[in-house]
Amino acid sequence: MEKLDLLYQGKAKKLYATDDQDVLWVEYMNQATAGNGAKKEQIEGKGHLNNEITSLMFRLLAKRGIASHFVKQLSGTEQLVRKMTMFPLEIVMRNVAAGSFATRYGVKEGTVLSKPVLEFFYKSDELNDPFINNDDILALELATEEQLEIISAKAREINQALLAIFSSIDVRLVDFKIEMGITSDGMILLADEITPDTCRLWDEQGQGEDSEAIEHLDKDLFRRDLGSIIPAYEEILTRLQGLESPEACGGNCHCKH
Amino acid sequence: MEKLDLLYQGKAKKLYATDDQDVLWVEYMNQATAGNGAKKEQIEGKGHLNNEITSLMFRLLAKRGIASHFVKQLSGTEQLVRKMTMFPLEIVMRNVAAGSFATRYGVKEGTVLSKPVLEFFYKSDELNDPFINNDDILALELATEEQLEIISAKAREINQALLAIFSSIDVRLVDFKIEMGITSDGMILLADEITPDTCRLWDEQGQGEDSEAIEHLDKDLFRRDLGSIIPAYEEILTRLQGLESPEACGGNCHCKH
Repeated sequence: MEKLDLLYQGKAKKLYATDDQDVLWVEYMNQATAGNGAKKEQIEGKGHLNNEITSLMFRLLAKRGIASHFVKQLSGTEQLVRKMTMFPLEIVMRNVAAGSFATRYGVKEGTVLSKPVLEFFYKSDELNDPFINNDDILALELATEEQLEIISAKAREINQALLAIFSSIDVRLVDFKIEMGITSDGMILLADEITPDTCRLWDEQGQGEDSEAIEHLDKDLFRRDLGSIIPAYEEILTRLQGLESPEACGGNCHCKH
Repeated sequence: MEKLDLLYQGKAKKLYATDDQDVLWVEYMNQATAGNGAKKEQIEGKGHLNNEITSLMFRLLAKRGIASHFVKQLSGTEQLVRKMTMFPLEIVMRNVAAGSFATRYGVKEGTVLSKPVLEFFYKSDELNDPFINNDDILALELATEEQLEIISAKAREINQALLAIFSSIDVRLVDFKIEMGITSDGMILLADEITPDTCRLWDEQGQGEDSEAIEHLDKDLFRRDLGSIIPAYEEILTRLQGLESPEACGGNCHCKH
């Protein structure tokens, strides 16, 4: 596989063409941003950790029957993925009130939601990624009704799988953001990444019954200036690696097996 | 029927108890507000016009089989309505992009939507009436799933009826906000008001084919400082009165019959 032109540079990743028109070469960067790019920093080791974590997450999801754009990991900071036409949507699933949900509706952060909540945001830097509902999505023709049903069902299925995975490593999955796209042959697939950049992950190890303190293992450490993200991201990676057998990564995942 | 204690004072109406525990006495005020009360003014004649218009609208909807909380008009500024437990939701139907929809998604005001859009906003002055989706409504327990289905179906039905009514008086129904509640015997009914305060109404009379100018017959005149609302509200009332037979108002509606 040959790495060709840079196609797109996002806030945390670069996407390159390859000599296979259905495959992209992804490079995870060390850049951390928050507030739609208002806060920006280079954090040594972040790209490597996120590439390792999301590769592992995609493999763990595949084992549970959830397909994604992931093809294979190439190096510490690189992976191959299937090329897709992306829906311009941030797909957010919430299990516990936090972040913009808590602020928007005046709900105390940490309140367990009576059922998982699915929210969409319209991906647009100029519009500041506004909240959008299903009718709006259809009216703006960002997806068809059938696609929206598939996307919603997949998001809820992915939430159930991620809840199980994170629960097994004593981590509470508060909420997460994913993206989806369509392959050239019309399949809707999970894309983008699943990392502590895109999930709210609260540590449940060593938490006393009465403790109100939240141990963040995610980008809120950066967003809220609570400390370095690196040890937290390393902790997530180490715990997740415990779930995978040495064979599963095929020896090229740069994991600790 | 006897008017008893003041129960609630909103931005445009006062609600009083009556000697019938299932009936409220509504008084339409002359107050106009915009931007969640940031702009406020007394406009002579507004309360009278809105009481006349909404009474007429509720009668016209009833003729089309759409029930509401409306019981009867008492005077120029007063009416009786059924007492309800209100859902804390602003229910918005949009046929044409305008207002917050146009701003939020960067869509040109006046763009016809490919299908009507239903949006909910959580009624909360402190939170500034935030946009809310169906999952959020269920998680915050603002309505049950069954109630939300009924509310949504009714909102779409009301939109179809209002489109027909306004089209017949050469007015374009751009969007509107309604509220619903439940009666003591469990019926979900249309409540609040349907007036140029709560609808965007664009004049289609005397509009040249090429004209880009919008003739507002609604509260945008006040919100956007485009002129007095009174002649516009009078125009809406006069045209609507043309739809009603002299018998329909029962002689106590203070209309021009």
